[in-house]
Amino acid sequence: MATPSAIIWSNNQLQLLDQRILPARCEYLHYDDPFAVAEAIRNMVVRGAPAIGITAAYGMVLAAQQLASQPASVAAWCAALSAAREAIANSRPTAVNLFWALNRCDQVIEEQGNGGQVLAALRELAIQIHAEDVTINQRIGDFGASLIPHNSIVYTHCNAGALATGGYGTALGVIRSAHRDGKIKGVFAGETRPWLQGARLTSWELMQDDIPVTLAIEGAAAHLIREHKPSWIIVGADRVAANGDAANKIGTYNLAIIAKYHGTKVMVAAPTSTFDAHIDGPQIPIEQRPGNEISHSFGHQVAPTNIATSNPAFDVTPAQLIDAIVTEHGIIHQPNRERVLAHLAQNK
Amino acid sequence: MATPSAIIWSNNQLQLLDQRILPARCEYLHYDDPFAVAEAIRNMVVRGAPAIGITAAYGMVLAAQQLASQPASVAAWCAALSAAREAIANSRPTAVNLFWALNRCDQVIEEQGNGGQVLAALRELAIQIHAEDVTINQRIGDFGASLIPHNSIVYTHCNAGALATGGYGTALGVIRSAHRDGKIKGVFAGETRPWLQGARLTSWELMQDDIPVTLAIEGAAAHLIREHKPSWIIVGADRVAANGDAANKIGTYNLAIIAKYHGTKVMVAAPTSTFDAHIDGPQIPIEQRPGNEISHSFGHQVAPTNIATSNPAFDVTPAQLIDAIVTEHGIIHQPNRERVLAHLAQNK
Repeated sequence: MATPSAIIWSNNQLQLLDQRILPARCEYLHYDDPFAVAEAIRNMVVRGAPAIGITAAYGMVLAAQQLASQPASVAAWCAALSAAREAIANSRPTAVNLFWALNRCDQVIEEQGNGGQVLAALRELAIQIHAEDVTINQRIGDFGASLIPHNSIVYTHCNAGALATGGYGTALGVIRSAHRDGKIKGVFAGETRPWLQGARLTSWELMQDDIPVTLAIEGAAAHLIREHKPSWIIVGADRVAANGDAANKIGTYNLAIIAKYHGTKVMVAAPTSTFDAHIDGPQIPIEQRPGNEISHSFGHQVAPTNIATSNPAFDVTPAQLIDAIVTEHGIIHQPNRERVLAHLAQNK
Repeated sequence: MATPSAIIWSNNQLQLLDQRILPARCEYLHYDDPFAVAEAIRNMVVRGAPAIGITAAYGMVLAAQQLASQPASVAAWCAALSAAREAIANSRPTAVNLFWALNRCDQVIEEQGNGGQVLAALRELAIQIHAEDVTINQRIGDFGASLIPHNSIVYTHCNAGALATGGYGTALGVIRSAHRDGKIKGVFAGETRPWLQGARLTSWELMQDDIPVTLAIEGAAAHLIREHKPSWIIVGADRVAANGDAANKIGTYNLAIIAKYHGTKVMVAAPTSTFDAHIDGPQIPIEQRPGNEISHSFGHQVAPTNIATSNPAFDVTPAQLIDAIVTEHGIIHQPNRERVLAHLAQNK
């Protein structure tokens, strides 16, 4: 059984698999309104940088559909589309794919003006971004798998899988391709507090593909890496900076330091839409999420009332700790500014 | 408001603060039976190496009390005491204080034979171990605090506090003494999956003493250490080996590697009863706890049915990553076999 799609576009309606309740229940929520889509991104119905980008593009289609269903002036079109854009742009700050997708929508809107043409063009664009992403992930998967030795244990964090993308996954795409090639002896998945994407999503995806996976808490990483000697840590990214630093789910930077200490290599698997050539790692905005994500668990209070918390959703792994960044165009070994910018320039 | 005692001996009955339901509720469970005490240790009603040692000694008192209440032969005394000892010894494998306390009970039993004398002697011993532990922790606290620079941020993991000991705490004893001396700007507490001792216990203890504490997930450690530059990581230990390696709650080894990478120092605070001069770090037995501690949360399933898990409760931090081990007798700087054994020999 394959992993179900995180995002379905059907009958001019957007359906998002509610990833907050997986794996207990597999339910889709339906969206006709771009502001509800922005809320769905903020509330983590859908998550994962490429999936957020695809969802953002469909959100702009929904905005255009709402306008097309009624007579509207050019000014009304401009106002409504830009209000929808702003809401979606403000949903989550770190994943750059969101802005990449919105920028592609902007271009279409600029070229097509308004009315029926812009709706058709936005719809075509969103469907194209969605379909392209699957192909991109398969290419990332194959490039990444070429680096994995036979008989490997690998270690992943959070969920950079089919559920985080249009399908196949980035980090889990690499693991899928390597498993297809007979190279994977086992996968460790960190549970990924506070949202438990490793427990709820990655474990589930890998088990559905019969890839052997063992779930562990983040605290066990150094112990397990010493004991089991994985060949690679393989993670996705929410933003890769010009200098090769990579923002990803909080805990990735921990893992990269621990990997380096044990001689395990670190791979970041991400499409070029996740790259931001305009800034370096320290400038990447890091989302702070509400403290009740860690002070409460399933309605239970697990910390004292009024406890102070720090709940950053992402961290930035410096390029020196990364052995390879894998994109749909190939591999950036030992990334630095020169190699990252050259990779982007060669593959425009 | 001070932290309530984890362990109360009153009217010849043992009361244990049920640490599984803190901080939501503050309730004591009552024990008259040594086998129930063994279960309480296994089920983590009480936890923390020194507290487990004290509880084990009281468990042996309860065994002797049961015997003393009825006529019993010498053979019956021997059989019953050794059955109780075995049950308590088998409750949890890693904390060496458990065995240290049982060995002290063995000595008393050997000296006193059986009957009324052994009961009185065991009772006196348990009360002494309990009272001594508070003094020991205050000494550890003061020695440790002498290493903390003024205006420090410090970082701790799990709960090595009053709740893990007879009172005052080991790692939190150091933080209490340093706070008393005006040196503490703030404390970061890792939540400590899967049991959340950092969220539930350490945060609660520190807030009750008005020591400023910020709670974070384990995954945020590297990010927060980079941002806030703590002077020291301060943790307890469940067993310190002859070579200076220290077993402590899973996640400690992660933190020590991450600290070293950022130039933050690592302190292990532990009484000499936590030392095991007979083995080195790699020989310390590591308890594997049930997988449902990570696949389920408050009755909710958070991972797929039949997920494979790895759930070690402890890890071993190598001596090279430890800057200071602090005991009731002083400080072992840059610990290694020679220094650890000399410290133990000087303080017999």
